[in-house]
Amino acid sequence: MSDLEEDLRPLDHRPEEDHEDIYDEDGSIRGDFLALVCAAIADRDVLYLRQHVAKLHESELGHLIEAIQPDQRVALVRLLGDDFDMTALTEVDEGIRLQIVEQMPNAQIAAAIGELDSDDAVYILEDLDQEDREEILAQLPFTERVRLRRALDYPESSAGRRMQTEFVAVPPFWTVGQTIDYMRDEEELPESFTQIFVIDPTFKLLGAVDLDRILRTKRQTKIEAVMRETNHPIPAHMDQEEAAQLFEQYDLLSAAVVDEGGRLVGVLTIDDVVDVIQEEAEEDLMRLGGVGDEELSDTIPETSRSRVPWLLVNLLTAFLAASVISLFEATIEQIVALAVLMPIVAGMGGNAGSQTMTVTVRALATRNLDIHNAFRVVRREVGVGLVNGMIFGVLIGVVAGLWFQDPNIGGIIATAMLINMLAAALAGIMIPLLLDRVGIDPAVASAVFVTTVTDITGFFSFLGLATWWFSIS
Amino acid sequence: MSDLEEDLRPLDHRPEEDHEDIYDEDGSIRGDFLALVCAAIADRDVLYLRQHVAKLHESELGHLIEAIQPDQRVALVRLLGDDFDMTALTEVDEGIRLQIVEQMPNAQIAAAIGELDSDDAVYILEDLDQEDREEILAQLPFTERVRLRRALDYPESSAGRRMQTEFVAVPPFWTVGQTIDYMRDEEELPESFTQIFVIDPTFKLLGAVDLDRILRTKRQTKIEAVMRETNHPIPAHMDQEEAAQLFEQYDLLSAAVVDEGGRLVGVLTIDDVVDVIQEEAEEDLMRLGGVGDEELSDTIPETSRSRVPWLLVNLLTAFLAASVISLFEATIEQIVALAVLMPIVAGMGGNAGSQTMTVTVRALATRNLDIHNAFRVVRREVGVGLVNGMIFGVLIGVVAGLWFQDPNIGGIIATAMLINMLAAALAGIMIPLLLDRVGIDPAVASAVFVTTVTDITGFFSFLGLATWWFSIS
Repeated sequence: MSDLEEDLRPLDHRPEEDHEDIYDEDGSIRGDFLALVCAAIADRDVLYLRQHVAKLHESELGHLIEAIQPDQRVALVRLLGDDFDMTALTEVDEGIRLQIVEQMPNAQIAAAIGELDSDDAVYILEDLDQEDREEILAQLPFTERVRLRRALDYPESSAGRRMQTEFVAVPPFWTVGQTIDYMRDEEELPESFTQIFVIDPTFKLLGAVDLDRILRTKRQTKIEAVMRETNHPIPAHMDQEEAAQLFEQYDLLSAAVVDEGGRLVGVLTIDDVVDVIQEEAEEDLMRLGGVGDEELSDTIPETSRSRVPWLLVNLLTAFLAASVISLFEATIEQIVALAVLMPIVAGMGGNAGSQTMTVTVRALATRNLDIHNAFRVVRREVGVGLVNGMIFGVLIGVVAGLWFQDPNIGGIIATAMLINMLAAALAGIMIPLLLDRVGIDPAVASAVFVTTVTDITGFFSFLGLATWWFSIS
Repeated sequence: MSDLEEDLRPLDHRPEEDHEDIYDEDGSIRGDFLALVCAAIADRDVLYLRQHVAKLHESELGHLIEAIQPDQRVALVRLLGDDFDMTALTEVDEGIRLQIVEQMPNAQIAAAIGELDSDDAVYILEDLDQEDREEILAQLPFTERVRLRRALDYPESSAGRRMQTEFVAVPPFWTVGQTIDYMRDEEELPESFTQIFVIDPTFKLLGAVDLDRILRTKRQTKIEAVMRETNHPIPAHMDQEEAAQLFEQYDLLSAAVVDEGGRLVGVLTIDDVVDVIQEEAEEDLMRLGGVGDEELSDTIPETSRSRVPWLLVNLLTAFLAASVISLFEATIEQIVALAVLMPIVAGMGGNAGSQTMTVTVRALATRNLDIHNAFRVVRREVGVGLVNGMIFGVLIGVVAGLWFQDPNIGGIIATAMLINMLAAALAGIMIPLLLDRVGIDPAVASAVFVTTVTDITGFFSFLGLATWWFSIS
């Protein structure tokens, strides 16, 4: 009976048990549930909150916190008290996390942090200012403190910061049976794990064994006979993005993190890596769209400040394009149709250029584009530029010629269109490639350069051709 | 001794063993390695290829295949023969995969497919045409054929297509000890797994047990005492993106896939889900950039065809903007400075609009933006539009006024700028929200509508204001 009880204990704490679906069909939190929670917060109905909110999965609780009003968030955390699962804070925007943590007494944070896996604890601690962090660390038990401090000592966005310092490690001469018995008796195991590491007495990493391998093997077999060398131990200083790429490429579920001496210091798990992969893809998209790492909860001044630099750079290039137009003021004065049509040439070039650029930036980020196939891709893009330039040149030429009843204008815009589509293709592929070569993130800088090229080429070719043609005819 | 031998057997086949690093610092395949492989293919040096290429990890082999010339790819696969790991084909572009598979005799494909996990087999089979697929399936053993056909019967991009049909399932009344003994003796286990499913005699899913839980539990404990209910069984018809969101939200490593009757039909694993997450983020980025699901290996006609539709829609809106300009031909004829400056107003609005739109589209995709915080975000965006509109209005107004020595032009462009930045903010947030509400993917359609709004507002406000101001002054 006591055996069974022991087995059931951790099970009772699983938040998945007696689960209610808090989402509607669209994936938003159900309106009626949200209303009940808000009412319970207003009424300080701790019983309801404990029954229906404390049991939510950490990510559901995170969604809930983001959905309620800012002042209700702190109230909710206060009302839940010890029942509040701090892990939920790893699921919300940084701004919201800081807002809540700053309102909590350091003693309460310390108590809650002590319950967390080390990676979650680090995630919350790293955003706090030096002083608060030290005060919280000082209130933790010695081993816990040392572990967290070690992780916090690694650079931001490194594998060492994201790793979990709890792991199972055994010596190579143990048998499978010994290992299983150890796991049955040991109280201090990580909450969940998928492999066991093999180390020597100095903690040097020798290898790893997946749990399914342990389960398939006879008890008397030695661990060293079933372990495999880990070809992808992750140096603690490695950037998290690079670590994520290893996980992706080799389909890893977890990987050992080692220090400079090859000693095992932690384990990086796929759930953290999935977050990194998400963030990375998101970063590229945001950068291409000209926004930094802003969050939905940022204030107006924060958001404005993060967007001004990109607009400013674009303003400079817009004036550059305008000065190209001003070269041809005399021609425009004579033929106003040119002013009407010129944004079409520039705009279509910009669109074509950003198509090529998007493909290039993404291929560079996923390492699908490198020196071995760059030439093939450049050739293809130029070919596409030529084909689409001809298609749209003819199309626009015919429409413009009919609109202004002037075949000359049709011919001029068609030629300018073809030139600009070719320029767009070349700029769209060469600019990201060159930026990548010189070590600048192509996602950040490409768009500005590409549209500068297509604007200037568009205006110059169209207005220049027109000036030349009407001067000789 | 025979025990030990059995334990070592599968280990010997792990490709990670005696691993050589084929990548340079930039993550490209090392040039010298590539040259050696190409030479070996040209020389038909099967020995070298078997020793250095056949042992590569599937993803490395995939990279290698993408890096060499198209005609070398088929030659490489032929030379490797039975030593070619078909899994590598799941790592390359669809175009390259088809090119290779079409050159292989169906008998060889059937033999190779038989060795694969079912999810990889389906991944390769689903791209083939009906006839080839049937011929290959016909050559597979009965159970294999039934399994693959069942997976292929599920809709494209469904969980049923991505699932693995190999899994470990036991009845609830077994003990932990019985389960471990079963795994030690059973030959036909999946290559790797992290949980065991619990089913009734009709294959109805009752629950699951993580392997670490099995290892921590005493042998005599019943499985039903340690199993947990699976709150997230994945219906086989569920879209893979939706399934991926469940994995992400609940940090799952693998999840049971069930049919309409709740019967266990397969298991979805995190490594496949990571690919889905990647694809999904990539899709949003590509769509925002106006390119479809094209691949780096697509030909010029394929690529051109995939990009024309978006350019065509943009052309229509460009003509719409041009027709707005044509309303003010008389004014432009008098004050050519307007033609010089008008692209600045339209362009800056376009940039500001695409910033807001990028944030909105991403927030919608990650479900961070819903009815509960939409109003807050709209308010913020309008505020940012107002602030940035004033900053850039003043800036551009001063520069333009000085450039053309005319304070009137400065005042007009400043006002038009402010109006267009506000329009950009509203369009950037409202258009994606509305598209999402009516069930259209905001990533596909937002950009066109947003730039249409900013172009038209930009030209109309600037030229309209100028016409009005100079007519009264």
